[in-house]
This record gives sequence, C-alpha cells and structure tokens, in this order.
Amino acid sequence: MSQPMDRALRARAARVIPGGMYGHQAVGGLPEGYPQFFARAEGPFLWDTDGNLLLDLMCAYGPQLFGYGNAEIDRAYVEQMSAGDAMTGPSPLMVDLAETMVSMVGHADWAMFCKNGSDATTMALMVARAHTGRNAIVRAAGAYHGSQPWSNPRPRGIAPTDQAAQHLYVYNDVVSLEAAVKAAGKDIAAIFASPYRHDVFVDQALPSAEYAMRARELANETGALLIVDEVRAGFRIARDCSWSLIGVAPDLSCWGKAIANGHPISALMGSEKARSAAEKIYATGSYWFAAAAMAASLATLQLVRESDYLERITALGENLRRGLDSCASTHGFALRQTGPAQMPLILFDNDPDMRLGYFWCARMVAHGVYVHPWHNMFLSAAMTDANVEFALDAAAKSFAELAEAAPKLGPNTRYPGPRLG
Amino acid sequence: MSQPMDRALRARAARVIPGGMYGHQAVGGLPEGYPQFFARAEGPFLWDTDGNLLLDLMCAYGPQLFGYGNAEIDRAYVEQMSAGDAMTGPSPLMVDLAETMVSMVGHADWAMFCKNGSDATTMALMVARAHTGRNAIVRAAGAYHGSQPWSNPRPRGIAPTDQAAQHLYVYNDVVSLEAAVKAAGKDIAAIFASPYRHDVFVDQALPSAEYAMRARELANETGALLIVDEVRAGFRIARDCSWSLIGVAPDLSCWGKAIANGHPISALMGSEKARSAAEKIYATGSYWFAAAAMAASLATLQLVRESDYLERITALGENLRRGLDSCASTHGFALRQTGPAQMPLILFDNDPDMRLGYFWCARMVAHGVYVHPWHNMFLSAAMTDANVEFALDAAAKSFAELAEAAPKLGPNTRYPGPRLG
Repeated sequence: MSQPMDRALRARAARVIPGGMYGHQAVGGLPEGYPQFFARAEGPFLWDTDGNLLLDLMCAYGPQLFGYGNAEIDRAYVEQMSAGDAMTGPSPLMVDLAETMVSMVGHADWAMFCKNGSDATTMALMVARAHTGRNAIVRAAGAYHGSQPWSNPRPRGIAPTDQAAQHLYVYNDVVSLEAAVKAAGKDIAAIFASPYRHDVFVDQALPSAEYAMRARELANETGALLIVDEVRAGFRIARDCSWSLIGVAPDLSCWGKAIANGHPISALMGSEKARSAAEKIYATGSYWFAAAAMAASLATLQLVRESDYLERITALGENLRRGLDSCASTHGFALRQTGPAQMPLILFDNDPDMRLGYFWCARMVAHGVYVHPWHNMFLSAAMTDANVEFALDAAAKSFAELAEAAPKLGPNTRYPGPRLG
Repeated sequence: MSQPMDRALRARAARVIPGGMYGHQAVGGLPEGYPQFFARAEGPFLWDTDGNLLLDLMCAYGPQLFGYGNAEIDRAYVEQMSAGDAMTGPSPLMVDLAETMVSMVGHADWAMFCKNGSDATTMALMVARAHTGRNAIVRAAGAYHGSQPWSNPRPRGIAPTDQAAQHLYVYNDVVSLEAAVKAAGKDIAAIFASPYRHDVFVDQALPSAEYAMRARELANETGALLIVDEVRAGFRIARDCSWSLIGVAPDLSCWGKAIANGHPISALMGSEKARSAAEKIYATGSYWFAAAAMAASLATLQLVRESDYLERITALGENLRRGLDSCASTHGFALRQTGPAQMPLILFDNDPDMRLGYFWCARMVAHGVYVHPWHNMFLSAAMTDANVEFALDAAAKSFAELAEAAPKLGPNTRYPGPRLG
C-alpha cells in the first residue's frame, strides 16, 4: 500500500492537531501502515486518501449498521435538514422518535435525546443521583462508559474528585458485584453494566443470567438504579434492550452509535420509576434538539424493525468466525474469537505483546480488509457473503505471511494495552 | 395565535419525554403562548406546527449565523455526507478545518473538534489540569459553561464532589477575581471567562480591559491556564477570539454554535504552551470525527472571513435597539438593553418578577416575532432592514398593548429566575 497522501496529511495534522490526532480514531496505537484519513465511504467499503479500497470491519467504531451512505436513511436526513434542523425548538419528529424508541425498548417509558454516547451515560448517572439523593456508583472495572471525567479511562487531566465514590466489580463475577455494592453502602445511586463485556484488549464475555439477575436484585434491594449502557451494542444484539434476551429489565438504558446509522444522536431511556428524577435534572446541548438526525434515526429504526439485518449480520459473523478459525489452524495459529459473532474480537493465543495480532492485522489491511487488533469490530447489514469470502481470502494470505514471519518478529512497541496471555 | 397542533404535540410529548421537554428549549419557563415545536425554518424565519410564521430573534439559541438553510453551507454538508461522514477515521477536511481555525484565531496554534459546547469546555478543563497537575478552577458566578456535572447550573443529580475546588468571582470585578485566585491557592489549574457577561436573567456587561488583563496576569503569575469560552459569542463579536479586541490572548478557547451555522460541531483551541497537555488527555466521541459538519464549518468560516456579516448584524442590532428604546419610551416604559447590539438582551426597568417583560414578549410572539424574556438573543446575517422594521412594528403594537394591560397584570408565576429590579 502506497500512502504518500496519508503521510502528507499526517505531517500537516501534526502542526494543528495535538499529537496529530486524538481519541479512538488516532492510529498511533495500531500497527504501522494503517491509514489515518479516509476520503470516501460507501456500503461496507472505505477508501483511504491514496485510493486504497478497504472492506471495513470497524463500521466507524459502531455507528454504521446499514452501510455507509445508506440511501433511505441519508435521504431522510437531507429532507429534514431542508425543512429545519437545529431550530429554536424541536420539531415534531422528536415526539415521533421518543414514541418509536419507547415502543421498541421494552423496559422504557420515556426517552431524552442528546449527541454523544457519554451525554447519555452522564445523564443516566445524574438521573440515578437525583432519584436516590445519593452519589456512589458501582461499575465494572475496564468497562467504557464514555470519556467524560467521571468515566474517563485515563488519568491525565482528571481530578481525583471526578471519580470519587466509584466501586468496581469484575464483569460477570457476582461475588465482586456484591462486594462493590456493599462497599458503596447506603450512598449507592447506580449500578452500571455493559450489555456484555466488550472491554478493549481482552476476551469479550456474554453476560451470565446469574450476574444480570443479581444486578437487578441488588438494585431493587438498595434502591439504586440499574443502568445498561447500550451505546456500543444497542440493536446489534436484539431489537430491544440487549438484556431483554435474558429477561432482565434495567431502569435506565443509554443508546447511540447505530441508532441513526452514523448521524449524530444518542439517547437516554428510562422506566416510569425514573421519570420524576429525569424531569429534575438539567441536561441540554446546542444541537440536541436538531431534527435531521432524528429523521435519520426514525429511518434507521424502521429498518431495525422491518428488515432481517440482525439475522444477517449474525450469520455473516458466524461464517467469518468459522472461516477464520479454520484458516488460522491450517497455518498453526489458535485464535480466541469472543463476543457476539456480529461484534467480533479476534485475539491470538500466546501473544502477550500482540506481535502476532499486529502483524496479521497489518497484512489484512494491506490485503484490503480493515480489522482492529484489540477493539471489538462490527459487521454491517451492507455486507454480503462475498465480502466475508473476500475477508477470508485476505485472512488466508495474511496467516501464511504471518507463519513465515512469526519466528523473526521482534517485540511490539506500538501495543498500548495490558500484556495478555 | 391558534395552536391546536402544538397542544396536541405537547400532550404526546408529556407521555414519552420527561416533563414534556427538557433543557434550554423547553418553553415551560417562557410566557404562555410560545410554541414548543417548529415545523420549518428558512432564512430568518420559523414556522410553528400550526402554520404561524415567526421572525426568529433567537437563531436556535446561537447556532444560526447565516440563516436557516443557508444554501452554500448546507450544500457543503450534503456533498461531504455523500462522500463520507462518520467513518472509521477522519477525512482530510479535519486537517483543513484545524488549519483554517488556527489561521483565524490569533492566540491558537492547534484545534480539537468535538460535538457539544460542553465537550469543548470540559476538554479545556482537562487540558488545564493536565498542564498544571492541579485541580482548582476559578470561574465567574452565574456564567454558563455547559451542562456537564462540573458546570451544571442546577443542583439535582450533581454530587458535591463534581464541583469541588471551584472558586467564584464576579464578572468584571478585579477584586473578587483576585480573591478567587487567592482562595484557589497553589491548586489553581484554570481561570474561566466568558468573552462578555452573557448570564441569563441579568443585565449583560462587556468585559473591562482591566478585568481581562488582570485575568491574563493572574494566569501568568500562578501558572494557571486562561480559558475564554466563546461557545455562545464566538464570531459574533470578532472574526477572531472576542478578547482580541481588547488585546488579551487566552491559552485556550472553546467554540461551537455558530462555527458551522447549526451543523453539529464544536472545538477546543489552544496555544503552543498547552499543546503537550492536550496531547495527554483522552477525549473522544463517536461522531467527533464526522466529516460533513466539518465541511459545513469550512463553508461557514469562509463566509465569516469574506462577507460583511459582522458589520451587518451589528448595524441591524443597533437599529433594533434604537427603535425599541424610542418605541418603549413613547409608551412610558424604560428598557435595559445590554450586551453587544447583535446579541441583545432586553429587560424592563422596575419589573422584578418580569411580568412586564413576559406580557410584552408574549405579544411579540403573537405579532410574529420570537423574542426571549431573559436569555440573550442573536441576530443573523440572513436578516434585513425590513425584518428589523417588522420587529419594530410588532414592538409598537406590543408596547401599546402592554401599556393598557400593565396596571392589571398579576404576579408572574412562570418566571424561573432571580427577582430583579
């Protein structure tokens, strides 16, 4: 892959953007050769600025559910934008969207819309504190709930008070959950849970029914609110709250990313019990009431309800997973593929500094498939069996190249996460 | 004004949105008769859902600078949306936009983009804390810097620790500023300032040079970063940072609202001194790297640089202010019109519960002009002399109606702010 344009853009970016790029889309922690910038996107594909075509298994880190530039969804956006987007008040679409979301998400009786996933998680925290009159939070160690100071995963720029009264548990570990709730004591306001363990760097884990039910019981016993953060996984596991599959209803759920196929909107949803507290908090933003993203969300949710997208991305993911396992073992590698098949994480066994994974991922990108070495990926309904075949062809070449290179690979100096076994 | 549609929408909203609406666009604290929902916007006009036409002096609470549905800006948005919006990485437009903003904002050497104004103010706080290794904040009492917990103006859902180590001063009051800095002591990380005092409910005030310069000196003496929050006023006072007019350069500035004429994007900008700290914080969001709003911002900033919008909104604002003063005094009322003329706040003298203001504003809306009784308003470059004439005609009728009604007005039970003289 020749990348003179990408290199030139990085040099310009280094002058006017701190570190050249920031946040989850900075490629500094990824293998060499990953493009930093993209010129175009369509369906399941990305084009970098040097004209290289990539099948994109990251889907914009989640927002893409029905393919880049989905015609129906984008048309809804543009039509509403022409009528009115950010105005001095909301459009009637805000009511339509709240009614639609409430009709789809079983536990919820109301919705509030915002922009970032972290707006929704922060409002959830505020509602829980307003509801209980207490402050402490119980949440899983390593779970991501946004980059606001209270949930920021890194220490720089965070005051110790920003994360005061937080008690951590190990996902799926009931004993640690109970201990965290006990440590929070009478000050407990909220129990946060991801719908499944989708932490970066480590094996993913589906929720055990025992864990989810115990979280519900502990919330009931203590009066805390149970919050499921669906920002990343929402509508990729179920057409309802993900925990509906195991029969556990949270009090609050947080939504974003896929709910408008990449158009900027997020949501906090809640049950009747939490409505009064939600009425009391002050939460707002300049663009939160903008109508175009609500139109796009309505079009997206129609596809969620009326298409077989969920069955298709699941089947595509399962085919990809089976094919990769088979292909890896042919070349002498053992993969740990975890999480729902439609949100795959692929780690190599016996790869503590991820040198195998990084080499393989770099080769996948060179062969035209954008994969991530340590963040869960996403399949979209714009992908086809042929796309999965293409990815498996690229994987076969990449495993072969890895088998040849593996004995000579040096330490992986770019890997930013914990060392794994 | 007949409003059966608006009433029906409110009834539906009450079931699925807490309180029926939330945040700054909820009309519960405004006079009766204000529409809650809008069906359409074009140029300087809004249409409510019952077909009533309104000249909009709120401009979406700031984002509208060049008129609703500005053709050039919206075309830039749609064209980039078709090429690629929220992708797995940023588009080259992110570099273009950072270079453009840096070329326009004199104090700044770099930019980071985000979605909400409060994303930018929160990142500013994080950069200041990372830069200094300290935690305390000095900020003006009553100034709004977003609805995140650290700056939320209301107590519900906020933990005491969220606003720990905050020391308040009175805007423009050097003695109180010095006292707040002293109180923060060796832990001081940041001094926040609005470009002018644009607090709700009270008379606005332009910054005194003495105050702004002293803030700069105190930041220099203590090592704290000086942060100017331009989210509301940016590019409505100057084509640069607002304090460039008084010769004071902050270390960080926060931007939003008007920078993309209502398309969702905000920005933190900083000087070289703060770059290293900005590189160290973790700040990100699902839609922060989306390209379409960046294209819209580039088109907006071209109009900022190349059109006479600033001179025109200033002249329109001055004409409106003169006309209103004259008209009010004809009918026996004294107004306090404060703030820059292009961002007017209109209060009535001797109106402690704002009953005069509320009645007058309600009549203005009935006569087709959307005004706000206690939040600063905004003029847009889509407005014309004829629009100002229309507003003044509506004002003349409204003052006459107020003169007749004033002796019989009862207490104002809807006013949510402090009682004023």
